[in-house]
Parts: sequence; structure tokens; C-alpha cells
Amino acid sequence: VSERLEVSYELFCGRGESAERKARGIALEQTVELPAATLPPGIESAMVGRIEALEPAGRNRYRARISYAPETIGGELTQLLNVLFGNISLKRGIRINGIAWPAGLLHRLGGPRHGIEGIRRLTGAWRRALLCTALKPMGLDAAALARRCEAFARGGIDLIKDDHGLANQPAAPFLERLHRCQEAVQRGNAHGGRNALYLPNVTAPLAELPRRLEAARDAGCRAVLISPWLAGPDSLRWARDEFGLALMAHPALTGSMFGERHGLAPELVIGDLFRAAGADASIYPNADGRFGFSRRRCEAINARLRGPLGDLRPAFPVPGGGMDAARAPGWVRRYGADTILLIGGSLYARRDLVRGARELLAAVREQQA
Amino acid sequence: VSERLEVSYELFCGRGESAERKARGIALEQTVELPAATLPPGIESAMVGRIEALEPAGRNRYRARISYAPETIGGELTQLLNVLFGNISLKRGIRINGIAWPAGLLHRLGGPRHGIEGIRRLTGAWRRALLCTALKPMGLDAAALARRCEAFARGGIDLIKDDHGLANQPAAPFLERLHRCQEAVQRGNAHGGRNALYLPNVTAPLAELPRRLEAARDAGCRAVLISPWLAGPDSLRWARDEFGLALMAHPALTGSMFGERHGLAPELVIGDLFRAAGADASIYPNADGRFGFSRRRCEAINARLRGPLGDLRPAFPVPGGGMDAARAPGWVRRYGADTILLIGGSLYARRDLVRGARELLAAVREQQA
Repeated sequence: VSERLEVSYELFCGRGESAERKARGIALEQTVELPAATLPPGIESAMVGRIEALEPAGRNRYRARISYAPETIGGELTQLLNVLFGNISLKRGIRINGIAWPAGLLHRLGGPRHGIEGIRRLTGAWRRALLCTALKPMGLDAAALARRCEAFARGGIDLIKDDHGLANQPAAPFLERLHRCQEAVQRGNAHGGRNALYLPNVTAPLAELPRRLEAARDAGCRAVLISPWLAGPDSLRWARDEFGLALMAHPALTGSMFGERHGLAPELVIGDLFRAAGADASIYPNADGRFGFSRRRCEAINARLRGPLGDLRPAFPVPGGGMDAARAPGWVRRYGADTILLIGGSLYARRDLVRGARELLAAVREQQA
Repeated sequence: VSERLEVSYELFCGRGESAERKARGIALEQTVELPAATLPPGIESAMVGRIEALEPAGRNRYRARISYAPETIGGELTQLLNVLFGNISLKRGIRINGIAWPAGLLHRLGGPRHGIEGIRRLTGAWRRALLCTALKPMGLDAAALARRCEAFARGGIDLIKDDHGLANQPAAPFLERLHRCQEAVQRGNAHGGRNALYLPNVTAPLAELPRRLEAARDAGCRAVLISPWLAGPDSLRWARDEFGLALMAHPALTGSMFGERHGLAPELVIGDLFRAAGADASIYPNADGRFGFSRRRCEAINARLRGPLGDLRPAFPVPGGGMDAARAPGWVRRYGADTILLIGGSLYARRDLVRGARELLAAVREQQA
């Protein structure tokens, strides 16, 4: 018995557009891409999406549920994305706000290799929210970035990642940055710090991606940063299976998917998809920062990363994007201990990075005590 | 002297939102990701985007031009996408509608290896629009798809591609489909056909992508189909450099980028970016078909694919998506001979695929005579 992938849509119909035709159009477009009349016998029942429900939800608005046979996907993430939103991305007024996943598909995608427990083990931080910061700005040379890395490690930050815009630019080329920062984090850990990890940004063109992952592993890194929408949606799975490093996902470029009337709900991409593809931690723009996500949206992302999802391990939510260090304890109270707080700019506003990090760690520890 | 990447934005400001702050926010967000006050000396002038122009363009609407130093990118496609729309994808009301490309960056990205002339050479069709169709629907086995492939080749279709939803599903697994269809196209060419190419869909997870490209090349294919937004934006460049096959790009999932008030203009993605990354031909949803692109938008895409773009070869536009065979001559008149017409469903509505293809070819030839 094959479990079907069931997708919930919100449909926004234009003047004179029939919701039935729109739903039926999706069911055909995402599978056979032919009018039903031209289909050979047996194909319609086996392959075309099945409309499970369709009901009005307001003025020119409808809710639809369409289920897809696993045979339309075949178990590959690329084709899964295509069934979800490939061709209909080019249409209008279609928003996916729920996915009921077949357990077999989730199992096949595999999910986090380390997950929340694995990252706690790597950092040695067991009972509190974790702290993350970003090395920046671009334009500094590798030695200057490494000094910042050492200071953050001495101050007790758990996860020190490259800014996701640090790629392989001339100011701080990847390999030099990798080695200097990895040495720096070890020095910082040895001099007053704890067990911080440095996460280099391995996001790169396809020919480079394996070289950067290999270099990171060989340098002793235990975790890396990837932007899946830049490096390719499957890059997480591939990095997990080939290199075994812990993976933090960055949402760069995914925001184009999050239209209010067209696209996918953010918690399905940054939550379900990234977790299923192997992210052990997933960054998102926290409420009240530089971006416009609501608290409710952020809590939905937390729930999709940490809650039950087939047999997949839970992943850490990483709220960030303009989060003020002074408000860190409040976010821990709201989101709970299984959270990584990403705090960048507000730490840099301090002259003394070590002290800023220490005070932040003390505040978060106190919150958790 | 370094040439800067200059990006034109349309900004939609919310109530009380200042256009100056919004433009300045973009310039910082896409580069240093820090407030200007926390930047070390020299970084601002070297790295932060420079606002070249900002002017009102209607109620709460503005036009801005911001230029970026090549040092913020470093020559890699992944980081180029990040500078263009990485973090700001997560904001609202920012639409990129123009890009002035530094010649050096284009040269480095490399563009089409074959281009229009190369594809004409491969197909032997020199003075007319080319014809393309898709093998479908999913659910048919490889033998049945191959029969369709042979019929289209006998009828004179130039480029016979997999439907982009044919991945590696159980009904027609990739390798079996590849070999059967490649043999079929050769049989069709030998029996009444011309010089048709079969383009297998190599879109796949990262571990599989090189295997599928290698298998396609070894089977004798000269061209393949890739959906870059599914396989990863850099997959075109990589396939071009590693395998040398001609590349047809499919726009699956890119539509999420094309919001009217947030995103990138389609001609910049399906046109500039795909061409720069190496697409020899780029599919888009034609006007008056199942999708909503206007004729003007389609002509803009044609222009970006065929017109001057640094030292890059021109690429074929491939309008498709519900195009009626009966209207093919009209589209050739409008778009010109350097066009590949993608006609799928309307050919399948004919009982006799060979005759349908022959009549289509005759009509297009007559138009061109």
C-alpha cells in the first residue's frame, strides 16, 4: 500500500476563474502535463493528482487538498520539489500551506544526521539554549576574521559561523579563512573558552562544493554552513551523506518562495524541507528583527523543526537577523532551551567582543537555571 | 579598474517606510550585514553597495540603482545570486528589473558553449525556427515513451526532450528511458526523419547528476535538459564545463522569483542568468498558453537571450507551455527564426504523431521560405 503525499493549497481566484478548474489544473500540471483527454488508459488514475477536498475560504479564496502518488516522485528531492511547486510556480494565486508527508518518503530523504542531541554533544552544552554568531563583515582579511573568531570562542559562544556572504572573495579566500578561523577557535577554546565550533560557509559552485567540504573536514571542523537555495536544494542531503559534518542551513534566496498569495509557507521550506534534507539547524529571520516574520510564523518554524516528522531527528531552530543581545533571555523564555540564538550585529556594537559574549552567555545561563 | 555590478530596483514602500532607508538597507544587507556604525575603517567604501540613483516612480514607489564592487562577489555564481537577492528575498517590496553586467563577470561565468549556431549545427536546421516537443506523460513505460520519440523524429521534430517531470520514477527509470529513447531517435532519423536530437532530463540529486550526464554522453546524446532551480543554480555551468553537452534549461520553480512587487523580472532569470550560466536554449511559458506571461515579457526574454551580453554567445529562446500547433507560424512571424517552438499537448491531441509533426514542420518551413 503506497502512502500518498497530500498537499494543502490556498487558491486565490481571479475574476471569472473557477476554483474547480484551478485545482484540476494543478493536479494535471504537476504530474502528466497533458489535458486529460489525451492521456493513455490507466495514466489518469495512477498519476494525476487526486483532489481530496475543495472548499470556499473567503472572497475568491478556496482551500484545496490534492494528493499525489509516490510514483510521481520516485524518492528524489529534486522531483519532489518539482511536484510541489515546479510548474505552478509560474502561475498565480497558489499558496501551499500544509504538507502531509508519507513516512516512507521522509525516511528516504533521511533528515538530520546529528540533530539537536548531536549538536549538543559536539558543543558540550546540554541544558540551555545555544549561542551562535557570525564572522563579518566581508572585506576584512582572514587574520582579522580569525581574531574575531578567537574572541567569540573565549567569550563562550557555542557556534561561530562565517557570515553567509563570505564565499571565496579576494579579501579572505576560503582556504585561508578556514585554516585561520579553525586555529583561532581552538585557541579561544583553550584560553578561557569552552567547546566552540567554527562553521565555515561551504556554499559554492558545484565543482567547488566537495573541495570545500573536504577541506573543512580535514581542517577539523565538525559543522558547516550551507545556503541550500544558492548551492542547490539537494546540497544538504549530499553533504550529509558524503561528509557527515553537522549542517546549519541558511535561508538566503528562499524568501522568494514566501509570497502571501503565491508560494510556500516559510515553515514548510525552512522547517520541513530543510530538516528532511538533513539540516541539523536551520536559520530564520526572527520576529522584531530586520525582517518581517511574525512571532506566530517563527513558532510554526520551531514546531516543524522540533516536532514529530516521520522517523526524523529533531533539528535546532536558529532565530537571527537583527536580534538584540539584551533581549536574548526573553527569546529563550519564549522559544525554549532547544533553540540556537544567532546574534551578530548587536555583539559587534560592543568594543570588547569577549566580554560581550560572556555577558550574553551568563544571561542565557541564568534564564535557564 | 574594476567594473561594478549595477542593479536596478523598484521599491514599494509601506506606510511610513522611507525609500532612502530602504535603499540603504539593501546596500548593507546584501554586503556587510552590519550597521554602518559598527564597520571597521575602509570597509564601507570598499564593500557596501553604492546608491547611484533614487527617484520616485509613483505612489509609494521608487526606482533605485545600487552598484556593487566585484570584490563582494568574487566571481562565483552562488555568491552572485546571494548579492542579487539572498537576504533581501526575505524582505518585502523589492523587485529587481534590470542588471548592468560587468563584462569581466560575464566572461568568467562563460555563457553558452554551443549557443544558437551550435544547436543549428547539431540539428542541421539553418534557416528556420526549430521545433521541440516533450515525451510524456509520466506513467508510460520507457518503451512507450521511446515509440513516441521515434514517431516525432520520423516526423521531423528537431529536439525531442523528456518532459521535465520525468526523473527516475519506477514507470520509466532514467537509464532504461535514456537508452530506449536514444535508440528510437536514431531509428526515426534513419526512417524518414532528419537529424533530431533526444534530450534526456538529467535533473537529479547531486550524487546522481554526474552519473546521468555521463550516461547521456556515453549513450550518444548531444544535448540534455536541466531544471537549474531544482538541480541547483550552478548545475548549468558545471554540466557545460564537465560534459560539454548542449544544455536546454527548464524554468521549474523559478516562478517563485517573479512576484510583481518582490523578486526579479523573469527576463533576468530565464534570460540573463540562465544564458550567463551556460544555457544554449531556455524554455519559458509563452503568452496565450497555460501561463500568464505577456507578449511583451516574452519579447524581453527573447531579447536577453539573443541580444548582446558581454562576449557571450546568443542562446535560443524556447517558448512553450500550451502552445497550439496551428498557431506556430504566427509565433515564428512574431519571434523570428532564431526561436525553438516547444509544442507538446497540441501534438498529442493528434492520433498520428508522425503526420502531426510533419505538418507542423511544413507549416514552419513555409513561413520561413
